[in-house]
Amino acid sequence: MPVVQEQRIVDRIRAKVGASRMALGIGDDCAIFRPRSAREELVFTTDMLVEDVHFRRETHTPAQVGYKALARGLSDIAAMGAEPRFCLLSVAFPKWASSSWIDRFFDGLLALARATGTELAGGDLSHAAAFTADITVCGSAPVGASLRRSTAHAGDYVYVSDTLGGSALGLATSKGAAWKRHLRPEPRLALGRYLRTRASAAMDITDGLSLDLHRLCLASNVSADIEPPPLFRGASLEQALHGGEDYELLFTARPNKRIPAAFGGIALTRIGQIRRGHAGEMRQAGKPLPIKGYDHFS
Amino acid sequence: MPVVQEQRIVDRIRAKVGASRMALGIGDDCAIFRPRSAREELVFTTDMLVEDVHFRRETHTPAQVGYKALARGLSDIAAMGAEPRFCLLSVAFPKWASSSWIDRFFDGLLALARATGTELAGGDLSHAAAFTADITVCGSAPVGASLRRSTAHAGDYVYVSDTLGGSALGLATSKGAAWKRHLRPEPRLALGRYLRTRASAAMDITDGLSLDLHRLCLASNVSADIEPPPLFRGASLEQALHGGEDYELLFTARPNKRIPAAFGGIALTRIGQIRRGHAGEMRQAGKPLPIKGYDHFS
Repeated sequence: MPVVQEQRIVDRIRAKVGASRMALGIGDDCAIFRPRSAREELVFTTDMLVEDVHFRRETHTPAQVGYKALARGLSDIAAMGAEPRFCLLSVAFPKWASSSWIDRFFDGLLALARATGTELAGGDLSHAAAFTADITVCGSAPVGASLRRSTAHAGDYVYVSDTLGGSALGLATSKGAAWKRHLRPEPRLALGRYLRTRASAAMDITDGLSLDLHRLCLASNVSADIEPPPLFRGASLEQALHGGEDYELLFTARPNKRIPAAFGGIALTRIGQIRRGHAGEMRQAGKPLPIKGYDHFS
Repeated sequence: MPVVQEQRIVDRIRAKVGASRMALGIGDDCAIFRPRSAREELVFTTDMLVEDVHFRRETHTPAQVGYKALARGLSDIAAMGAEPRFCLLSVAFPKWASSSWIDRFFDGLLALARATGTELAGGDLSHAAAFTADITVCGSAPVGASLRRSTAHAGDYVYVSDTLGGSALGLATSKGAAWKRHLRPEPRLALGRYLRTRASAAMDITDGLSLDLHRLCLASNVSADIEPPPLFRGASLEQALHGGEDYELLFTARPNKRIPAAFGGIALTRIGQIRRGHAGEMRQAGKPLPIKGYDHFS
């Protein structure tokens, strides 16, 4: 099993934090908080977007950067089956960011915020050498209804939404539908809510199917057998298995749950099955699946 | 009235966002969200700490950086009169950050988290050229009890907690009690909760008394007359009026509210009175008070 440094750091932090009083603490797409006497639970996620790490200003318009800053957080909200409610934005602008660049950054972010009912409720403005935006999104779901990554069981089928590898292909070619896919991932919000009563576990695919399925298996203490996932037109199997930033949903469901072939025009494809066995192990077409997703600390 | 660029950007963003469905949206120390049917309201703040903007690694230990990253957010929670509940941390580590530096950063943050009952509930790990930490803190208060900056009225007395100018003096001298004050500001959480039923408006002093009082006056559509505030031992009046990062509370109270001379060992000093008049205008010792606080965009 390859060393996954980021996971190690997260595990060490979780050990330091100790017992959690949250409904769900560190380690999933979102944390879950249950306000006293409320009929809803609140889910929270935070995502940082850094210039020259997550985007380049030479290739991304300010509106595209704004869109992506929020879309990444909304994808986590979708993965929990929650409805977005509001967001907070901390942003540090470098000297090169003109007043019009800043304006168009906010236009891109707020267009997506409006389209998804996510109010920008506050934040923090600062400056830095590199543009950095950190978005916190709060979503809500009926108490107990949020989807987690730690609740898959042996025998559950494994599914993915739409196709994989498009974002990695776009990043490699900077053109066509794949580049658009890389620039404007669609948070699968309606699908996430639909899956609340159907999926046994869910997460979004941000760092590549191999790394994210590994994380789901580790969290659920299971292993998985998968076949090749559906490929984005032109993408390689390598890109689909290990490429990051697809922002599709990876989910599991009991075999007796009917999962339709598509939902709202997005294909839902069964790619495998959860097994007992060494936690986090995965096989693809019968052979061990290596983990090659993106790790900030490897 | 000097141009305050940061305020302009915030105003423009607020105009873009439009009507708010939050109990309180953009512009205060925290946003306020009321979950359906809950007996408590939740307050949220987010604060970004950037290397070489807010601290230098040559002069700050990793534990001090961790402490400060959370303390800044807790100070906003204190200013709302709320009780901290949990926090989320997005952090980008540069190549120079060793595993032990990262560890001690979390130790400093988590020691304050434990001392204040603020659970670290999640976050995001990334990398960047400069160390960047963004903390989101959630606090709670009974519905309608949170303190705001927009509710001061003509005739209210103006108060500050403890002394001002210590952090600016510490930054200038890097020694003694003032340097410690700069490194380890105390979020005034118990005082904030005490003021819930006593203050008419409140905020924390992060960018200097002159700029922050100006913000309170603008938000409340009032002006203010003040006298010199109490000085940190060795600090100049200039440092007390315009120096940033004191993290003391600035609050107003109706003249008939008894405010004690101290609370929990922290002096509470009446420094002036709210007046009608041009919104945001301030006079000190009868003369117009210039605004010289810290502005990221000036």
